[in-house]
Amino acid sequence: MTVVGPLKQAELRVDPQRIQDRLQKLAAIGALPGGGVCRLALSDADRQARGLVVDWMCELGLSVSIDAIGNITGLRPGRCSGPPVMTGSHIDSVRSGGIYDGTLGVVAGLEAVEVLNHGGLDTEHSLAVSVFTNEEGVRFTPDMMGSMVHQGHLELATALGARDNAGMTVGAELERIGYRGVADSAVVRPRAYVELHIEQGPVLEHDTIDIGVVEAVQGISWTKVIVDGVANHAGTTPMARRHDAGFAAGAITAFVRGLTKRIGNDQVGTVGMIDLSPNVINVIPERAELTVDLRNTDEERLLAAERELHGFLRRIAEKEGVRITHRQLARFKPVEFDPGMTALIEDHARSLGLSTKRMSSGAGHDAQAFAPNCPTAMIFVPSVGGVSHSVQERTRLEDIENGANVLLKTLRALAG
Amino acid sequence: MTVVGPLKQAELRVDPQRIQDRLQKLAAIGALPGGGVCRLALSDADRQARGLVVDWMCELGLSVSIDAIGNITGLRPGRCSGPPVMTGSHIDSVRSGGIYDGTLGVVAGLEAVEVLNHGGLDTEHSLAVSVFTNEEGVRFTPDMMGSMVHQGHLELATALGARDNAGMTVGAELERIGYRGVADSAVVRPRAYVELHIEQGPVLEHDTIDIGVVEAVQGISWTKVIVDGVANHAGTTPMARRHDAGFAAGAITAFVRGLTKRIGNDQVGTVGMIDLSPNVINVIPERAELTVDLRNTDEERLLAAERELHGFLRRIAEKEGVRITHRQLARFKPVEFDPGMTALIEDHARSLGLSTKRMSSGAGHDAQAFAPNCPTAMIFVPSVGGVSHSVQERTRLEDIENGANVLLKTLRALAG
Repeated sequence: MTVVGPLKQAELRVDPQRIQDRLQKLAAIGALPGGGVCRLALSDADRQARGLVVDWMCELGLSVSIDAIGNITGLRPGRCSGPPVMTGSHIDSVRSGGIYDGTLGVVAGLEAVEVLNHGGLDTEHSLAVSVFTNEEGVRFTPDMMGSMVHQGHLELATALGARDNAGMTVGAELERIGYRGVADSAVVRPRAYVELHIEQGPVLEHDTIDIGVVEAVQGISWTKVIVDGVANHAGTTPMARRHDAGFAAGAITAFVRGLTKRIGNDQVGTVGMIDLSPNVINVIPERAELTVDLRNTDEERLLAAERELHGFLRRIAEKEGVRITHRQLARFKPVEFDPGMTALIEDHARSLGLSTKRMSSGAGHDAQAFAPNCPTAMIFVPSVGGVSHSVQERTRLEDIENGANVLLKTLRALAG
Repeated sequence: MTVVGPLKQAELRVDPQRIQDRLQKLAAIGALPGGGVCRLALSDADRQARGLVVDWMCELGLSVSIDAIGNITGLRPGRCSGPPVMTGSHIDSVRSGGIYDGTLGVVAGLEAVEVLNHGGLDTEHSLAVSVFTNEEGVRFTPDMMGSMVHQGHLELATALGARDNAGMTVGAELERIGYRGVADSAVVRPRAYVELHIEQGPVLEHDTIDIGVVEAVQGISWTKVIVDGVANHAGTTPMARRHDAGFAAGAITAFVRGLTKRIGNDQVGTVGMIDLSPNVINVIPERAELTVDLRNTDEERLLAAERELHGFLRRIAEKEGVRITHRQLARFKPVEFDPGMTALIEDHARSLGLSTKRMSSGAGHDAQAFAPNCPTAMIFVPSVGGVSHSVQERTRLEDIENGANVLLKTLRALAG
């Protein structure tokens, strides 16, 4: 790729108040007590938030299209007819999510368009701002569904057939909320992709850094584990004759913690979900369903972590006399971003007088779907206390402004 | 007490088919696929089952009374007007319960009355068959609620004020199902209490013994544990900065297992319930609620187990940086039954040519409420595979017949 170096663009600055206003308007949709949102993918709240973003895109003069997996793209045509420079993120949330996760990238993309519009500035290449369907993967798996379909890593039919716990499919829910579009996303290979996101971790705040320049995304391995034991009386069943699915779930949870210590590097591991049945005080659980989330930036270590987990599942099943089955809910290899893109982001951040740090992302992001297909990178801004996926998630307005200015300048440089 | 020794009662035998018919009729109320029942205390199913038992009591000519906590008692008057010899059990179940737990004791008591009626036999002392409210303690805590109020160990007002997860009180639910009675149970101190129950454990079947003569009941300690951590992103939060309520729950579950091994004796321990929130795959749990059920026949060891648990809760809270609170949901000291009563049961079982084994009960039973107030003991019959609190719970008809005959003969001897 050819990248335009940092230009003198002193006149181009985002309006933090306008960004804040848009974030607050989105935050009101699916609002939770305590300040967060519940806006699960393809819920009524998601529909309402999509409507608001589409309205904004139209007000900004973007040409809006919806593709077959419900991704929304607003296009600002450039002087030439080639592929666009793209930015974007998501507006769905986890069950008790924050108001910045995903939405910041979408709103900052719209802000960049607004600044260019106000300045009456054309670009050589088209500029696209996208909202990707079901990034969180909480209601439907896998996560990053929209961007993965968009960039050809996930079959459209598979994605449309994914079901939530109530048995509803993605396809039916897209129909219901009116976002099953016709645009063919498969042909869109952007010229470059850049995404602004909150860090969702504590590193930037701890190191008092303004801008994270994201070089890589951790690989992610999601496993669903089902333990079938024998329900029995909690008082009368001798310990030696138990087949306790709940104990197995607890042992697996404790094992995952130990595993992260042994593997080291930046290995993380989480058991986020445990469901026991019958789940009453005086009955040995006959069934446990739980999830294991493992992440590492090193694929070999991630594979080793998975092998260790599988080995433990076999051992605990044999020891406790329970049946354990497991299946992969999602698996992404670690992703490396484009060195030219990260250098560009770094240069522009520094030209704004901001401090930067090269880092990897512990969370999956839509950007990783683009990395194999076009020059891609991400911009992180600090999360207060490192907290995310929580109603307490917060990013200071000053940091939002900094990140949005870096995004604006990077997009401007890429679009020419 | 004065106990009448085993008499020649060759003519007195229960009708196993009649017992089976009554068990099946009760099993149809709240029936689950697979053969068990869900008949939570004071549910509509409980109401329906109570109605059936009251009908049977009336058909048998018993004088029926309902007390203020909803216990049902059918009285067969004796020649003298003193306190009755009492038998009984419960007809409420756990969420996925079997059809013998509790109901066998009630049905066998009615069968004893029917045999006496058919034989035209009066007794010196009155005979009472009781159904006690909320023995299981699944919907409302504590368990053995009805018998504990009946025998003065639990305040009526406290029991009536107990709430289920939906916020309904025992008092309101008793009103709703029409079983908030007026009889004053507090004055009933029976002459003796004997209860037939399935073992709910594997010992009798394993040792091929017909009748368990229950000398003691394990002490029970129920603890609710609440862990408050910090919800955070499962990918971006370094392991060292986590406050993971789900991990703490898993560690506590694993600890309870280890505790039972260290305490030894017949110490058992179960984590039957774990609820995480938000309970999603990619969020570190911010809250965990779990229950710990500890039982031992030795009070000192049970106290030691509780101390160990409390110590671990403090340590894991400090280590993980979470807040852990706990409260006792129920606590019963181990109970010893009356040696004269156990000898009587043993003699009558042997006179029927049945093999017997002295044992303790791992489960709590209504009988333990009576033990401090009158001569009390229990009769156990084998559970197939030791399984109970499960839809697979089963006891062979031959064993039911044996147990009911021992109950009949014991009651006859006690009633004179």
